[in-house]
Amino acid sequence: MKYVCRTEAEEIYNELLNEYKFSLEQLIELSGLGAAQAIAEAFPLNSEMKSCLFAIGPGDNGAKGLACARHIKHFGYSPVIFLVSELLRPSFINFQNQCEMSDIPCLEELPEAEMIAENYSFIVDAIYGNNFHPPIRPNSAIVLDTLMKYKLPICCIDIPSGWDTDSGYLKNAIQPNVVISDIVPKYCVSTIDGIQHYLAGRILPPMLGEKYELNLPQYPGHFMYVKIN
Amino acid sequence: MKYVCRTEAEEIYNELLNEYKFSLEQLIELSGLGAAQAIAEAFPLNSEMKSCLFAIGPGDNGAKGLACARHIKHFGYSPVIFLVSELLRPSFINFQNQCEMSDIPCLEELPEAEMIAENYSFIVDAIYGNNFHPPIRPNSAIVLDTLMKYKLPICCIDIPSGWDTDSGYLKNAIQPNVVISDIVPKYCVSTIDGIQHYLAGRILPPMLGEKYELNLPQYPGHFMYVKIN
Repeated sequence: MKYVCRTEAEEIYNELLNEYKFSLEQLIELSGLGAAQAIAEAFPLNSEMKSCLFAIGPGDNGAKGLACARHIKHFGYSPVIFLVSELLRPSFINFQNQCEMSDIPCLEELPEAEMIAENYSFIVDAIYGNNFHPPIRPNSAIVLDTLMKYKLPICCIDIPSGWDTDSGYLKNAIQPNVVISDIVPKYCVSTIDGIQHYLAGRILPPMLGEKYELNLPQYPGHFMYVKIN
Repeated sequence: MKYVCRTEAEEIYNELLNEYKFSLEQLIELSGLGAAQAIAEAFPLNSEMKSCLFAIGPGDNGAKGLACARHIKHFGYSPVIFLVSELLRPSFINFQNQCEMSDIPCLEELPEAEMIAENYSFIVDAIYGNNFHPPIRPNSAIVLDTLMKYKLPICCIDIPSGWDTDSGYLKNAIQPNVVISDIVPKYCVSTIDGIQHYLAGRILPPMLGEKYELNLPQYPGHFMYVKIN
């Protein structure tokens, strides 16, 4: 299986949008759904594994987190969302609206680390994805630090926030327990040991997989995610 | 469980679009995916159950069929599409483009009934849905007649083509083996005996279900469809 660099990931995404004519909302919806289904396997629903905090970034990765939170809610979990900064596009605000109208609370401030550890059983990191360019800005560093303080399990959508797709871990970045790669696994994920690794976002037409020689694992039956490690 | 009339189905759909701010592509994508997963249960994939003919109408129902065909292709089936008439919106043409670029053949003419029976193991009817208003036009009547001639199993997305949501079966309409209701079951489906009935399009926020007193069956786990009968 190939782990792609940032440029290649961007090329594939742009091809899906411009040549295959997928709408951005369509891609985000499928990615969010696949991630939600992988989360349902990684953190099986029960009375102690129900409430979760979604940290949402301003871009695509955040919008995928919002779609994921909505589906997780349908599955019976109790997600709560926190927007790390303002969403960048009107269509992303629509995803936020869908969450709010689906009765998912949106926190105005990030709680203290102790409160997070008390109230949630796991964290979903949907802050930064493939578009993130280092360095980590000071206000984000505070958020990442708070999320990691009490060693609650952290599940990252696509890329752990603060990591660089090509060069990997950076100081103060998220240290994940679970990573759900989106559409194609990114290079930085290949360097992480001891995590559960899923692939979701079952979108890629076979021809595009062949063109980029991705050699992705086969999704089982009609499942929208596949476990890699 | 409530079976809704056409007006109520339209109200719910418009609420999803206008109040919940779902994009039409998002809804179509989720409906198409849920239908594809239900088909994978109703017609389990094997060497004799692989090739299928999708009859695609010009509106929403047709676009859901196109999304469904793309997912079915990812699951390992060999779908072929036939457009009964020109697609009504540019975004529906994008769904067609996604099919063609996913190596799904698009037939220019509907084959003779005998050829259909020889080459395909089942038919997916995505011609008309809730927006269909009788009567069946003569050119559609010919298509419906050809599809039904050899008693190949027919799976209908949302509503069997040619049925009226409120008054049910009309002469020359499709007689289905499987119906996959989309988001909410429509009234006409309640009057059909001896079919397999699924609900897919797991989109409805709980509050909307309560508002319309739908009392829908519970989807199992993270599945995007549920079997009703």
